Parts: sequence; structure tokens; C-alpha cells
Amino acid sequence: MFTGLSAFPLTPMNEHSIQEREFSCLVKYVAKAGVDSIGVLGSTGSYAYLSCDERARIAKLGVENAGGVPVIIGIGALRTRDVLANAESAQQAGASGVLLAPVSYQKLTDDEVFDLYETVCRSLSVPLCVYDNPGTTHFEFSDELHGRIAQLPQVHSIKIPPVSNDIESAKERVARLRKLIPADVTIGISGDAAAATGLNAGCDVWYSVIGGLYPKAALAITRAAQAGDAQRARALSDILEPLWVLYKEYGGSLRLAATIAEVTGRVSQPCLPQPLKTLQGDKRKRVAAVIETLGLE
Amino acid sequence: MFTGLSAFPLTPMNEHSIQEREFSCLVKYVAKAGVDSIGVLGSTGSYAYLSCDERARIAKLGVENAGGVPVIIGIGALRTRDVLANAESAQQAGASGVLLAPVSYQKLTDDEVFDLYETVCRSLSVPLCVYDNPGTTHFEFSDELHGRIAQLPQVHSIKIPPVSNDIESAKERVARLRKLIPADVTIGISGDAAAATGLNAGCDVWYSVIGGLYPKAALAITRAAQAGDAQRARALSDILEPLWVLYKEYGGSLRLAATIAEVTGRVSQPCLPQPLKTLQGDKRKRVAAVIETLGLE
Repeated sequence: MFTGLSAFPLTPMNEHSIQEREFSCLVKYVAKAGVDSIGVLGSTGSYAYLSCDERARIAKLGVENAGGVPVIIGIGALRTRDVLANAESAQQAGASGVLLAPVSYQKLTDDEVFDLYETVCRSLSVPLCVYDNPGTTHFEFSDELHGRIAQLPQVHSIKIPPVSNDIESAKERVARLRKLIPADVTIGISGDAAAATGLNAGCDVWYSVIGGLYPKAALAITRAAQAGDAQRARALSDILEPLWVLYKEYGGSLRLAATIAEVTGRVSQPCLPQPLKTLQGDKRKRVAAVIETLGLE
Repeated sequence: MFTGLSAFPLTPMNEHSIQEREFSCLVKYVAKAGVDSIGVLGSTGSYAYLSCDERARIAKLGVENAGGVPVIIGIGALRTRDVLANAESAQQAGASGVLLAPVSYQKLTDDEVFDLYETVCRSLSVPLCVYDNPGTTHFEFSDELHGRIAQLPQVHSIKIPPVSNDIESAKERVARLRKLIPADVTIGISGDAAAATGLNAGCDVWYSVIGGLYPKAALAITRAAQAGDAQRARALSDILEPLWVLYKEYGGSLRLAATIAEVTGRVSQPCLPQPLKTLQGDKRKRVAAVIETLGLE
């Protein structure tokens, strides 16, 4: 399950409720495209902004609409108590795996993070992916800590931050981590702009934001890399360069993905939890133009 | 209310419940010492780790045990919806003011933060203090943004991060902000080690962690500075230098304050929400030794 393309759909919502029908459609769409797994309630799914009850509901809807494709559910929360509740509801919903980031308000120590993973793993009957995303959690994993956590038997994958787009540096980064973790723990790339390089550098899986909207384009890149055709993976990714530029200029993937979903009519507007907003004005027009030019589906 | 000493008590808790009796005792103790206000559910009060219902309960207990001392209640949350719910429960509880930090998971833009304050202020009938704490919120206020937000009529104070311990730099920092905000908006210093310098440099209020445990020592510093006796304020703060060293070495004020509360028997152990832990082993022994040497009460 923690290999190939894992697509992360949005969780469209407004201040009153979650748009359950729209969420279900997004999940069905990526499942039908043939992705290898679906990441529900990732950062793209705004997990951090939802209550435990809302998350239980979304977990259930995610599995129900995935048509048998394995569903990985984000269970991170500031408090261990809430992580355990989310783990329980994810498993009840039929998750094939869970994704856990060390979300922080007070800066966490390495020992606190290790204990969090150990405590949560003890409660799990499904495999766990360690979610390393310093941009949102403000926790920096050392490779040594990744190595310790990866020894926990429930840990089967690590979702790492973007690698350098220089293939040699990327290979070194992946190899350095690989040496410290068991052979059955996969390494997954995130940061869509770095995905082709990550896969070509030996990552086993792409945890993908754009795959949650345009699974066919993301699958083409993934399958090329998996077949060993690094050049084709690179070329397919380069076609999407105008999109990668927007990620960089417009402050990350969530607002961009949400804006794309709004302008293409897949979700109602607004679709993000306040205080977050999608892109407006000239930025929004530019997003619409790039999407039209690329002719994605 | 947003002047003098504002003392921030801990909210002692374990994985099962909040220690309501211990919390009430902490509040009573600082109220009796004669602090100018009590900051309930600040970062020291672990607001970010509690549900809206738990926060409503703590707000109520805080006001009930404050013996008429004004209570300022932290209402920050990742989602505007939850901030509004916390604002409502704080006001229902009888808060004299509220404290709002732009808590983030996804990095926030200036416009998102301004809109958050504007939306929340519209719902308030009590004054608000802007809580600027980049170490936990990961949002960096520009002075220009502070200026814009401080124009909102409900904003009456800004809690700024520690100033430099060089008095001239500190005075410049305070003067720079003062020029951009209305005359009736006070500036409050946080970071206990920088408090004497902050007050001597013209801050109107000290939002104090140590004041939540040792209000007499914090009041002595505050009153000296308020009386214009900068030298005495400095000298009284310097006596506590062994404590300020621990703040720096042991990763911030919450774990230190919680450890002090545990070793002095004011709260049960553990008192922090997992994954957070108080200091253990040699660090804990050193904290106990410093507290004994200082003879605080």
C-alpha cells in the first residue's frame, strides 16, 4: 500500500459543515483512475482544522467511496489523547493504514516525539506512515530519530519533505535515510514539484497533492519512474512546470489545490476552513489560465 | 486591566481530566497576592491542547476563583469557528478580556490574520489583547500589521515577544511599535527573563509565567518599574537570574513552570498533556535546587 501513487484529496468545507457529497466525488474520482492508495485527511485534507467527530465521519466516507483502493487516514493532533481517538476511528472506518505527523504548539523534543509514536503504535492493528513535514509541524526529524521510530513494528513508511531537484543530492538523501531504517519501510516523497526527482532517486511512493485532483497526470509520472524510465518521468513532470511555479510563488500546495478545485467547479466556494482562504484576484486568474493551458483532466 | 502584572497560571491535567481543584488553588493564590489581572488559558495554561468544552469549564473556574481580579482568557484556535466559540464561552464565564494568538498549521498570510482579528472583534463585548508569539504560532507579525489590527476598537493591548536585554534596543523596539498604534492600546512584555528590561523600556504590562507561580516576586519587579525605579526592577530581576538561565537551557517556560509546580507539590504529576513532559532526572534536580536556593514563595 505504501508504494506507487498515493493521492491526497481535499476535504471541502465551509464554516457550517463539510461538503460530504463533494468529498465523496473527489475520492471516487481518484479511486477510479487507479491510484495505489488514497490519503484521506492529510494536510491537503485539512485534518488539523477538524474535530475528532468530523474526522471519524470523513474517514468513514473516504473508505466507503474508495471502491476497494486502500485508504490511509491522517490521525495527527496536538494531543496524544486525540491522536489515539483518531487512530481508533480510522481503524473502525476500515483504514488500511494511518499517517501521523508530530503536530506541535509547544516545540517538541525528540523523546516526546518518539514516545508519541510508540504509544500510538501500541494501539494500532494497521500499519503507520511517519509524516515528516516541518513546514506545518515545526518539528525537524533527525535521521537518527527516523531510524529509531522506524524500528517500531507498525511503522511501514516515512513521508519525507521535498528533496533537492538535483538528482545526485536526492539520491544521497534517500540513501542516507535508507541505511538507518528496516528494509520493509518504504520512503515516500512529498512536494509535488520534487516528486519525479524523488521517485527517480529511489523513493518508493509519491504522497501527492496534485494526484488528488489530476490522478492521471500523477500516475503517468509515477508509472514511468517505477518502470525505470527516469527520463520520461522527468519529462512528464517538466510539462507541469507552470504548476510547480505556482506552488512556489503562492505559498504552498493547499491554497493552490483548493483554488484549482474551486475554479474547475469540483467544490463549492469557499472550500477551506477560515482563517484560510483560497487565492483571489489576479492570482486566481493566473491559476485558471495555467490549468486551461495544461489541459489536465 | 491591561497594565501592571498579569499572571498566567498553569492548567494542570492528565490524560483523563483537568485537575480542577489544583487549578482553582493556583488562581486563588495569584489573586490573593494582588496581581492586576490573571491570564487563564494562555500558552502556560495549555489552551491549545484542550477542547472548546474544557476551555469553557476552565474559563468559568478561573473567573469564579479570581475574587474580583480581572480575568483575561485565551481564545486562540486553529480554526476561526473555534475561536468564536471560545470567545463566546469566555464572555459567558465573565471574562474581563480575551487574548488571541494567530495559531497556525498552514502558514498564515497577513490578510488572513487581519481578517481573523476583525471577525473575532465583531463578536466581542470585552477588550482583546493581540498575542504575538512566533515561537508557538509560527506567525511573524510585522509592525505594520500590528498597526492595522490595533485600529480595531476592541483591541486594547499587544503582548509582544521578549525584547533584547539591552535597554536602548528595547526602548527603540517599544517606541517603534508605539508610533503605529492608538494611545489607549498598551504594550505588554512576555518572556520573564526580559520582563524587567521590557517594563523599564516602557512596556505597560508584564504577561508573566513566573507570576502565575510566584506572584510576589513578579509584583516586586513590576511595582519598582511602575514607580520609575528602573535600577531596583533590574536588581530584583537579576536575583532570579538562575531561573532565567533554566528557561533558556531547558527549552522554554512551560516545561519549567510545570516542573516547578510539580516539585513544589502544587500540582499532581504528570500535569502536562501528552506528548508534553515535564523535566526529569538531573534537570529536575537542578530546578528543585534553584527554587530552594532562591527561597521564593
